[in-house]
Amino acid sequence: MSDGMSKATLPGLAQIRDEIDRLDADIQALISARARCAQQVALVKQAEDPEATVFYRPEREAQVLQKVMARNEGPLHPEEMARLFREIMSACLALEHPLRIAFLGPNGTFTQTAALKHFGHSVQTVPLNTIDEVFREVEAGAVNYGVVPVENTTEGIVTHTADSFLTSSARIIGEVELRIHHHLLVAEGTRVESISRIYSHQQSLAQCRKWLDAHFPKAERVAVSSNAEAARRIKGEWHSAAIAGETAADMYGLVKRHECIEDNPSNTTRFLIIGTESVSPSGEDKTSIVVTMKRNQAGALHDILAPFAARGINLTRIESRPSKNDIWTYVFFIDFEGHQDDPRVREVMSELDPVVSDVKVLGSYPRAVL
Amino acid sequence: MSDGMSKATLPGLAQIRDEIDRLDADIQALISARARCAQQVALVKQAEDPEATVFYRPEREAQVLQKVMARNEGPLHPEEMARLFREIMSACLALEHPLRIAFLGPNGTFTQTAALKHFGHSVQTVPLNTIDEVFREVEAGAVNYGVVPVENTTEGIVTHTADSFLTSSARIIGEVELRIHHHLLVAEGTRVESISRIYSHQQSLAQCRKWLDAHFPKAERVAVSSNAEAARRIKGEWHSAAIAGETAADMYGLVKRHECIEDNPSNTTRFLIIGTESVSPSGEDKTSIVVTMKRNQAGALHDILAPFAARGINLTRIESRPSKNDIWTYVFFIDFEGHQDDPRVREVMSELDPVVSDVKVLGSYPRAVL
Repeated sequence: MSDGMSKATLPGLAQIRDEIDRLDADIQALISARARCAQQVALVKQAEDPEATVFYRPEREAQVLQKVMARNEGPLHPEEMARLFREIMSACLALEHPLRIAFLGPNGTFTQTAALKHFGHSVQTVPLNTIDEVFREVEAGAVNYGVVPVENTTEGIVTHTADSFLTSSARIIGEVELRIHHHLLVAEGTRVESISRIYSHQQSLAQCRKWLDAHFPKAERVAVSSNAEAARRIKGEWHSAAIAGETAADMYGLVKRHECIEDNPSNTTRFLIIGTESVSPSGEDKTSIVVTMKRNQAGALHDILAPFAARGINLTRIESRPSKNDIWTYVFFIDFEGHQDDPRVREVMSELDPVVSDVKVLGSYPRAVL
Repeated sequence: MSDGMSKATLPGLAQIRDEIDRLDADIQALISARARCAQQVALVKQAEDPEATVFYRPEREAQVLQKVMARNEGPLHPEEMARLFREIMSACLALEHPLRIAFLGPNGTFTQTAALKHFGHSVQTVPLNTIDEVFREVEAGAVNYGVVPVENTTEGIVTHTADSFLTSSARIIGEVELRIHHHLLVAEGTRVESISRIYSHQQSLAQCRKWLDAHFPKAERVAVSSNAEAARRIKGEWHSAAIAGETAADMYGLVKRHECIEDNPSNTTRFLIIGTESVSPSGEDKTSIVVTMKRNQAGALHDILAPFAARGINLTRIESRPSKNDIWTYVFFIDFEGHQDDPRVREVMSELDPVVSDVKVLGSYPRAVL
């Protein structure tokens, strides 16, 4: 606040609060009008299909949130504003039929956080014990959608999720990204200047290397099996620190001495939303496919990648896995930018067809907005 | 939907969506204006007190939510609309200084749910291991507020929370109520017609008596130590069911055969928000006091209750606990309607003073809105 701003130039509290009350009444009237529109959408869709009960359109929600973020002028952060609109859409949608969302439990995990980030809080979340169960409940129609973790920028792909797609008819209808932060944790009472050893998983140490070079150039860095293990170790050590996340700090009652020390602040875990229907283009889409190679195919990777390169289609991920049916063949999970209805993507798919043993589209879906 | 409503009388989807887009732009502009007002409030308060960093006013938030619910005309449920405003206020408040809220952990418990219900999602929640720690962190100023469970319509008062108030300087600044539902749980594969035995805590059995009479008149009802214990028992029994909540169903992987079977749908758990400042009247307030009796005081309860009765002040709770200092004296925890600044309440307090050994106001705070 500027020193030149005196109390006299500011409006009184009562005056500002009256203004807030007027704004609230207007906001409420508009949200109610929006809810009535959502009811009309449901009526239109039921006129088309009298059996319809679910009116969630991933591509439409993504477009709304993109617009919200693009036109945001502050003071709220665009992501915070988008979060509020996510909740408004969630409430409007639940008027018709609250969505049931299965996720890899238990309650309180990152996957539940991802589910609520994607669908808002006006849904029922159903924790399940295994990734397989999430796929099964979605296929059986016992829930509307499922949420499963798929890859972490630190740890790579969650292999179990990838494998489930090989045998399931569930499709990908969306993705969610959660940012994961690293903190420097110490036991209560530890003095920063006494820290001579820092424990963490090797990849976390690598991810915080520059920060460590700048702040703890002389401390010994010790790689252990996981960040949680690092946190556990320092519980009783007053000359040590650990690099780990929020959960580990809570679990072992440690103090966060420095927060968010990762060199690359975009360290994320990615989750997939699975369902049974396909999604129309939103304008900002990704497509996931799984390609099974022909046996002993020479130059396999080149054959797959050439059609994408020729059309300037960006691959966002490629990962190979042994096939479940034939130990000598490999499957490739490939994510790329674009929707399966795009002409360029259709061309790529038709070119892949003759050179591979099989290609399956797991889904086209809006790119994560937040 | 009426059969008479034909597709032709409905507006087209594109038309409704354009309308929604216009509404969203207006909603966003108003929320941004509201956020700017919140920034002004902060400036005004900092002009009064340059050290001020926290601008949360429980009584003001309660008033806003009361207005929202009173003027709500649907189609959204008033509680759902209030929830959206809670999130909007939470986001605006976090612009200045995100609140840190300690709660009785771990993550994923009802107490965390209560904290987020009360403060919205734009706060940092800090899980602590014990109720004592929550009190301590609040007193030390390490967090802005704390959330602790205090009573359950089924199980009565959480004695540990009550006792903590006896020795703490923390005050009550708010309350939250969460509705708790009972479900009929069975192991996967159990056929409803084969259920011959139903386990639960005695109070839960009592709370679902009418439903059980109607649906399972012949099944044996077995009272066990807790609902979680009931859920654990039936894990491997195909002729049994348990009455328990969501959490127990998740924990033991049971199926909810019937949901919300409690006869009285207002079964709630109550939580208190503790802080260090006192709260101004909101117009719909409660006050909590703890009264220590004089030793061997005859007609003690009558002496306490008479001043309230004389002024028509409603008691919402009264609970006696042995004093920590003297095993032969009792303390009474009393909640009643009204604020300690109300003249009637002041009169009651001055009348209590000579007849009891000690009376301590734990706080006056807005009644739970949602």
